[in-house]
Amino acid sequence: MNFSTYLKQKAKLAEKGLTKFINQPKNAPQILIDAMNYSLQAGGKRLRPVLVIATAEAFGKKASDVIAPACAIEMLHTYSLIHDDLPCLDNDDLRRNKPTSHKVYGEDLALLAGDGLLTYVFEVFCKAVDSKNISAQNTLTALSYFSKCAGCEGMVGGQVADIFAEGVMEGKSKRQAKLKNLKNKKLEYFALPKNSKEISVEALLEYIHKNKTGALITASVMVGSILAGASKSNLKLMEKYGQLIGLAFQIVDDILDETTSEKKLGKSKSDKQHKKLTFVSLYGLEESKKQADKAIKQSKKILDKVKVKNRKKLEPLYSLADFIQQRSN
Amino acid sequence: MNFSTYLKQKAKLAEKGLTKFINQPKNAPQILIDAMNYSLQAGGKRLRPVLVIATAEAFGKKASDVIAPACAIEMLHTYSLIHDDLPCLDNDDLRRNKPTSHKVYGEDLALLAGDGLLTYVFEVFCKAVDSKNISAQNTLTALSYFSKCAGCEGMVGGQVADIFAEGVMEGKSKRQAKLKNLKNKKLEYFALPKNSKEISVEALLEYIHKNKTGALITASVMVGSILAGASKSNLKLMEKYGQLIGLAFQIVDDILDETTSEKKLGKSKSDKQHKKLTFVSLYGLEESKKQADKAIKQSKKILDKVKVKNRKKLEPLYSLADFIQQRSN
Repeated sequence: MNFSTYLKQKAKLAEKGLTKFINQPKNAPQILIDAMNYSLQAGGKRLRPVLVIATAEAFGKKASDVIAPACAIEMLHTYSLIHDDLPCLDNDDLRRNKPTSHKVYGEDLALLAGDGLLTYVFEVFCKAVDSKNISAQNTLTALSYFSKCAGCEGMVGGQVADIFAEGVMEGKSKRQAKLKNLKNKKLEYFALPKNSKEISVEALLEYIHKNKTGALITASVMVGSILAGASKSNLKLMEKYGQLIGLAFQIVDDILDETTSEKKLGKSKSDKQHKKLTFVSLYGLEESKKQADKAIKQSKKILDKVKVKNRKKLEPLYSLADFIQQRSN
Repeated sequence: MNFSTYLKQKAKLAEKGLTKFINQPKNAPQILIDAMNYSLQAGGKRLRPVLVIATAEAFGKKASDVIAPACAIEMLHTYSLIHDDLPCLDNDDLRRNKPTSHKVYGEDLALLAGDGLLTYVFEVFCKAVDSKNISAQNTLTALSYFSKCAGCEGMVGGQVADIFAEGVMEGKSKRQAKLKNLKNKKLEYFALPKNSKEISVEALLEYIHKNKTGALITASVMVGSILAGASKSNLKLMEKYGQLIGLAFQIVDDILDETTSEKKLGKSKSDKQHKKLTFVSLYGLEESKKQADKAIKQSKKILDKVKVKNRKKLEPLYSLADFIQQRSN
C-alpha cells in the first residue's frame, strides 16, 4: 500500500473513533460537549493515533483493538492545545486556521473544555480492555506509561520549562520578574528537575524538546507496543525509536515556525514573539536541519533491530519517520 | 474507636501517602513540583481519601491496599480547586487561609500545576494494582467509574453548569453577554445535557449539586467499594449512599457560605458576589437545612441494607454521614 493512502486510511479511523467517543457522554452540559468537540474536530494530522495503530499492527494486533487508547491520546493532545492557547500561556487567537477555543467560548469554558477532555481521556483509554484481545494488565501498564509522558515528568513538565525559557536567550525572562524567590537564582535551576546532572541553557533546551512534544510521540509508540504485548527487548527499541522521531518532530516544528507562513502553519507564529528558546534560536537553521535528519536516520536504524514475525508490518513506521522529517505544517 | 480519632488516623495515612507520591517524580521541573505540592499540602479534611479507605475496609480490604487511589482522588480534588480559583473562573485570592496558587506562582504555572496534578492522578491511581490484593480488572473498573464522575458528566460538567447559572436568579447571566448564540435561548438549555427531561432553573440547580461536588464524593465511596470487590447489590446501595452524602455535602457548603465567616471558612465567600445559584438562594436557609438532614437520614437507612460480614466495619460510614451534616468549615 502507498504510504499516503495508509496515512489517510488510519487517520480516518481515528476521526471516526473521535466522533463516536465524543458523542457518548449523555450527562454532560451541551455547551461543554460543543466546546470539547470544536477543538477535537478542528482537524490536524492525527499523527499520534496513527502511531498507536501502526505500532499495535506491527506487533500483531488490529487497529480496532487499540482505537480507544489511540483516540484518547489525540484527545490529550487536543486539551494541551486548548490550554496552551489560553491568554495566560501563549495567548494565541488562531489554531488550524480557526479561532482558538477561548476566542469562541470564553476563557472559562475553554479552561473547562480542556479539563473535560483531559479527564475523558482516561475514561476512553480504559475501554481498550473492552477489546477481547487486550489484557487488563497491559491496559494498566500502557495507561501508566502514557500518564507519565503526559504529566509533570513529560508534556506538562516540558511546557513549564518552555515558559521559563522565554526570553532566556535575551538574558531576561518574564518569569524572573514574577517570582520573587527567583531573584538570585538562575531560571534553569527551577525549570529543570532537582537532580539534573547539568544546569545550563543547553540542558534546558534538551529538556523542553524531550518533553514538550517528544514525550507524547514516544507515548503513542509505546502505548501501541505495550497493548500489543511486545517483548521487553522490542519495547526498549520502540522507546528509543519514539524518542528519536519525537525529537525530530519538535526540531522540525521549530524550523517551520521560522520558515513557513502563518497561513500554511494554520496557527500564530509565536516562537519569536514570545522569545522562545528553540533549536533554531540556540543552534541556527542549518544545524537544526542536520540534527533532525540525524535523529530520523537513527530511528530507522533502531527499527532494523526490532524482531517481528512479519517485517512488512514495520514499513509504515519507517514511512512515518520520513513523514515527520518532511512535513510542511 | 472514637470517630474523631478514626478520622485523624485515616487523614494522617492520606497525608503520608500524598507526601510520598508527590516526591516520586524525579524528572519534573522543580518549580512545578513545588506548585503542585503547595496546594496539595494546604491542608483540608482529606474527606475523599478517608471515604475510599473506609469503604474499602467495610468490604474487607486494608487501608494500604487502596492508599494510591485514595491519594489520587485527593489530588484530583486539589487540581479542581486550583483551576476553580483562577481569575477566569472564581478569581479567588484565598483558599484554606493561604494565598491561592496563581497568587503565588502566577496564572500560567497555576494552570499547569493543575494540569500536572490531574494527569498525575491517573498514574498514581494505576498503582492500586501494585497491592497484591487488588485485581487489574477491578482497578480499571474503578478508574473508569472515577473518570466519569470527575469529567464532563460529573465534576467538570457541574462547574460548567455552575458558571452558566451565575446571575440566573437575577435574570441576567454573564455568559449570556459573552456567547452570541445564547441570545435567544435560555441558559439552562445549554448548561444542561441535551436529552434532559426537564429544562428549568430547578433542574439546573439539581444538576449542579449532583455533579459539582457530589460526583466526586460518590466516586470516593464507589472506588473503595469496587476495588474491594463489593457485590453488585452492595455497589448499588453504596452508590445511593454516596449520592446522598454528596448532596448533603453541597447543601451544607451553600449554607456555610451564607452563615459562616471567611476566616472560619478559610476561603472567600464568593457565592453571593458571583450571584451563584445555590440551594440557599433558591429555597432559603430553613428549607436547605431540612433537605440536608433528610439526605443524611436516608443515607444511613441505605447503609442498614448493606450486607457485610462484620457490621462493625460499617460504623465509620454512619459517622462520616453525621460528620458531613455537622461540619462547620
